[in-house]
Amino acid sequence: MQRIYFDNAATTALDPEVLEVMMPYLTEKFGNPSSIYSYGRETKIAIETARKSVAKILGAHPGEIFFTSGGTESSNTAITAAIRDLGCKNIISSPIEHHATLHSVEYWGKQDGLKLSFIKLDETGHVDMESLRALLAASTERSLVTLMHANNEIGNLLDIKAVGELCKEYDAIFHCDTVQTVGHYPLNLKEINVHFISAAGHKFHGPKGVGILYVNENVSIKPMINGGGQERNMRAGTENLYGIIGFAKALEIATARYEQDSAYIQDLKNYMKSRLETNIEGISFNGDCNGRCLYTVLNVAFPKTEKTEMILFNLDMAGICVSGGSACSSGANAGSHVINSIGTNLNQVPVRFSFSRHNTKEEVDAVVAKVKEFI
Amino acid sequence: MQRIYFDNAATTALDPEVLEVMMPYLTEKFGNPSSIYSYGRETKIAIETARKSVAKILGAHPGEIFFTSGGTESSNTAITAAIRDLGCKNIISSPIEHHATLHSVEYWGKQDGLKLSFIKLDETGHVDMESLRALLAASTERSLVTLMHANNEIGNLLDIKAVGELCKEYDAIFHCDTVQTVGHYPLNLKEINVHFISAAGHKFHGPKGVGILYVNENVSIKPMINGGGQERNMRAGTENLYGIIGFAKALEIATARYEQDSAYIQDLKNYMKSRLETNIEGISFNGDCNGRCLYTVLNVAFPKTEKTEMILFNLDMAGICVSGGSACSSGANAGSHVINSIGTNLNQVPVRFSFSRHNTKEEVDAVVAKVKEFI
Repeated sequence: MQRIYFDNAATTALDPEVLEVMMPYLTEKFGNPSSIYSYGRETKIAIETARKSVAKILGAHPGEIFFTSGGTESSNTAITAAIRDLGCKNIISSPIEHHATLHSVEYWGKQDGLKLSFIKLDETGHVDMESLRALLAASTERSLVTLMHANNEIGNLLDIKAVGELCKEYDAIFHCDTVQTVGHYPLNLKEINVHFISAAGHKFHGPKGVGILYVNENVSIKPMINGGGQERNMRAGTENLYGIIGFAKALEIATARYEQDSAYIQDLKNYMKSRLETNIEGISFNGDCNGRCLYTVLNVAFPKTEKTEMILFNLDMAGICVSGGSACSSGANAGSHVINSIGTNLNQVPVRFSFSRHNTKEEVDAVVAKVKEFI
Repeated sequence: MQRIYFDNAATTALDPEVLEVMMPYLTEKFGNPSSIYSYGRETKIAIETARKSVAKILGAHPGEIFFTSGGTESSNTAITAAIRDLGCKNIISSPIEHHATLHSVEYWGKQDGLKLSFIKLDETGHVDMESLRALLAASTERSLVTLMHANNEIGNLLDIKAVGELCKEYDAIFHCDTVQTVGHYPLNLKEINVHFISAAGHKFHGPKGVGILYVNENVSIKPMINGGGQERNMRAGTENLYGIIGFAKALEIATARYEQDSAYIQDLKNYMKSRLETNIEGISFNGDCNGRCLYTVLNVAFPKTEKTEMILFNLDMAGICVSGGSACSSGANAGSHVINSIGTNLNQVPVRFSFSRHNTKEEVDAVVAKVKEFI
């Protein structure tokens, strides 16, 4: 059975070209980057070269890029630091954030002296900017605004610039979870008023177990993980050397291929949407599907029937990988907190199809045919 | 120039056999372990198989093993949890701990209501057990004892069982940094009263960027990194899949080879020690070199001269990798906090030689000859 992988928002295949540049560091170049001899300096230089490359692509200074174990650690670090080191006592987030953010702000929201508020969403799941302004204006304490750039389930894109401007107006700290957009969109952090962004290599054909935290040079924070002096005393622990090398290479490739890949994948998404509309009755789409939305994600709302409730299972049996929501919360069988929070399409079965440059229209045809067969 | 790598306490070469089992997960088996379809379950099963294997080797239950990004994160998590979740207000540690522990306890020691004390060390750097008992007895609050199983610079081994028994007597929580011993010694956690241990894959020919935290089933803690439900809600973030697979394989190999490797490496260490004693005048050894000490580490105290102060530099020029202290703190040029804390050999130049199964007596001869030449 040929597998069709339509779950690229969960994780992506490691690019063979990325693996190729990782290989020397998985074999002969194993020196500890903190060692002072030349063999250690060699790997240190490789890390710093990776950092410069990532920084340049994102419009940041190398000193603003910190390598971490992934997007979740990055977001946790940013949120912790904003509260502990930057005096934020008023936390503003949204109910449709990834659990890396949501569970962190829920944890902090329970601590003495801290307040957690969720902004309102419109019917497609976009942040209501007036609600954000009202929450910022209502607080006498410094605010932390943590909102994701693109929602991993429905694909909605935040107006990151506008949120940044609003945060500036109220002297708020802004953390943006860009896990679904770094490596998928050009980002120029010089032009955005954001203090922290989080990203993960495995979302754009890079390795798992590595991510970055961008920390704007105008804020000064303490590490979340204490110990050795790695990452300029900001993130202790022997570096995930090959992961870091792979992260940078994957981002370089994604950046070079952006024009062609984004057009190709957007076309695939549009094609799948129209094929589904033509072939399946009664479906709709979650999120702002035709508007400000990831070109990689198509979240379909199927009318709830006995058959559609079995659709994930049956697609799996047919070798088709798609998901009902976020992979990170798929163990919990409580439905999607994103769909539940938006409150439309509640009585539907959500299925997320997410694409990469490795997918084809033939695969779309095959998947739509299977969907049709099953329901 | 042929490189001689005598810094295996800093990091080790990845075993090609370990890389081989990682490769499928770096190529075709890239599914997100949290995904519910079969392709995700396949990688989930691989992780759970790795966990079972690690648990079995360490005499633990699979439910007690949590994969992390490395030893530093593991130690930070244990210390944070002991204080935040287990009510420890009296922190007892030693001044020669790795910075992953030391900087963590220093951070916590400054927080309101918490007290940090350091135990006394004897002249070889061993923990004074009477000092530990006195600190435990003096506290009316619950204690956290965090002591390393083997010191990474001088190699001294802790009597982990005796410390565990003492902690039990005083209802203290015991965290043991076993980063230098897991993969180097058999450990049966069923027979040791320890609540947390930390380990890192790259110290025993496994991959960088992955470690474990053992949490005894009798204690219940909250995660340090919040988010998705990975690691049974204890450590959020998409798993470092290949890292985890590699960690388990490296530990399996180390365990299978223990008898032969430990004898071989101990012999190398003894050989180097005697060659140095024969060839270099006025040297001594830091730590309990002939007693309870790692077979992998030989820390030499050279008399301080203009020439010995240049020894690391000159060995590096000759392609020989050794270190003055911990790699993680080698950026800071304040000398070794371990040697400084023990207080003997202060006016000497410490050089750590650390060995692996890849080293040979021919390499020892070459290094001793170079040392002789340089000083």
